[in-house]
Amino acid sequence: MRMRNKPWAESYLTEHSDIVDLEAMHAHQVSEWFEQQQPIHIEVGSGMGKFITTLAQQNPHINYVAIERDKNVMIRVLDKVRELNLTNIKLLCNDAVILTDYFRQGEVDRIYLNFSDPWPKKRHAKRRLTYRSFLALYQQILREDGELHFKTDNRGLFAYSLESMSQFGMYFTKINLNLHQEDEGENIPTEYEHKFAEKGSRIYRMEAKFHSKHTNE
Amino acid sequence: MRMRNKPWAESYLTEHSDIVDLEAMHAHQVSEWFEQQQPIHIEVGSGMGKFITTLAQQNPHINYVAIERDKNVMIRVLDKVRELNLTNIKLLCNDAVILTDYFRQGEVDRIYLNFSDPWPKKRHAKRRLTYRSFLALYQQILREDGELHFKTDNRGLFAYSLESMSQFGMYFTKINLNLHQEDEGENIPTEYEHKFAEKGSRIYRMEAKFHSKHTNE
Repeated sequence: MRMRNKPWAESYLTEHSDIVDLEAMHAHQVSEWFEQQQPIHIEVGSGMGKFITTLAQQNPHINYVAIERDKNVMIRVLDKVRELNLTNIKLLCNDAVILTDYFRQGEVDRIYLNFSDPWPKKRHAKRRLTYRSFLALYQQILREDGELHFKTDNRGLFAYSLESMSQFGMYFTKINLNLHQEDEGENIPTEYEHKFAEKGSRIYRMEAKFHSKHTNE
Repeated sequence: MRMRNKPWAESYLTEHSDIVDLEAMHAHQVSEWFEQQQPIHIEVGSGMGKFITTLAQQNPHINYVAIERDKNVMIRVLDKVRELNLTNIKLLCNDAVILTDYFRQGEVDRIYLNFSDPWPKKRHAKRRLTYRSFLALYQQILREDGELHFKTDNRGLFAYSLESMSQFGMYFTKINLNLHQEDEGENIPTEYEHKFAEKGSRIYRMEAKFHSKHTNE
């Protein structure tokens, strides 16, 4: 998600350092940052934040962390958090590779990936958020039996992720190959999802876990 | 695949007991039944046999075994084998549950499942050829690093199979979520596949293996 550069983005985010962490101030102490000690669910690449702010509003007994590296996008998440007066969500303006700097081992209950950049060229496979180096980070911060929830409209990325995750030693507890034609359950659409589903694109979705004693690493 | 009952089917198959096994005559001795000792590839539920007889014709250095329990369908496979004078294919007219009676541990190089009955009702899940009890049979007869190749037009069965197989401790080396729109490679369509692809249905395909030291059993 690329947005036009807004020169005031950084100062706006800095002003709200009670909600946004721009400089890894809360490394290894994210859970202490929240008012309540509750299960932690995170979204890696939260875009404009409709998905995670909706969840935060619906589930006051869960602490949410939105991770988005683009400051020009993160300001939209901050707008929503302030508008809704949410106290159970924090924002990390940083890259996904820093996950293990913020979270302690097994501290996270659930990870969401929504419409991640597909990086369709093979030589860019390492940048996909379901490449094995990222899976290793998720495995480290997720608690035993923690879940990864992933959805995308990109067929190639979904197929790649099924391969990559199963090869890494993950298994799937729920798969939808055409989400909006099936039982959507409690699906919360992202901004992006609305646009694509209206055009008739399929949305793919999975819930996955790590086999407890097995990785291919 | 159900066909009209043909009273002469059994006697026709019995007549050709050099090609067809109707009564587990070759239990634990399938490989000795072939003229040449070569890698064994099997198809479970071979229907009318277009897929496996095409493969047998193209790959004389592989021994093929077609498994189909319906005699009225198996006669169509027998017709094709005789017409093409194939010596590297044998037919087992029996149920998939008998696989381990025919094949010794690790004797099979590759298993094909094509357009298996989806058994869409939850209470029939145990009958699906990717249910865990069948996976356990495949694991037993497949050699280390052997492959399972599966294709279907049934979205629900494909999603179920990704779940079931990954939970059992299998991983995917290749997945196509819309085969006929992608690089088909050396795809050989079945009779059934032709019909459905022409109507615009998606064909789903996977190649899978067992993690060597891990199952969820």
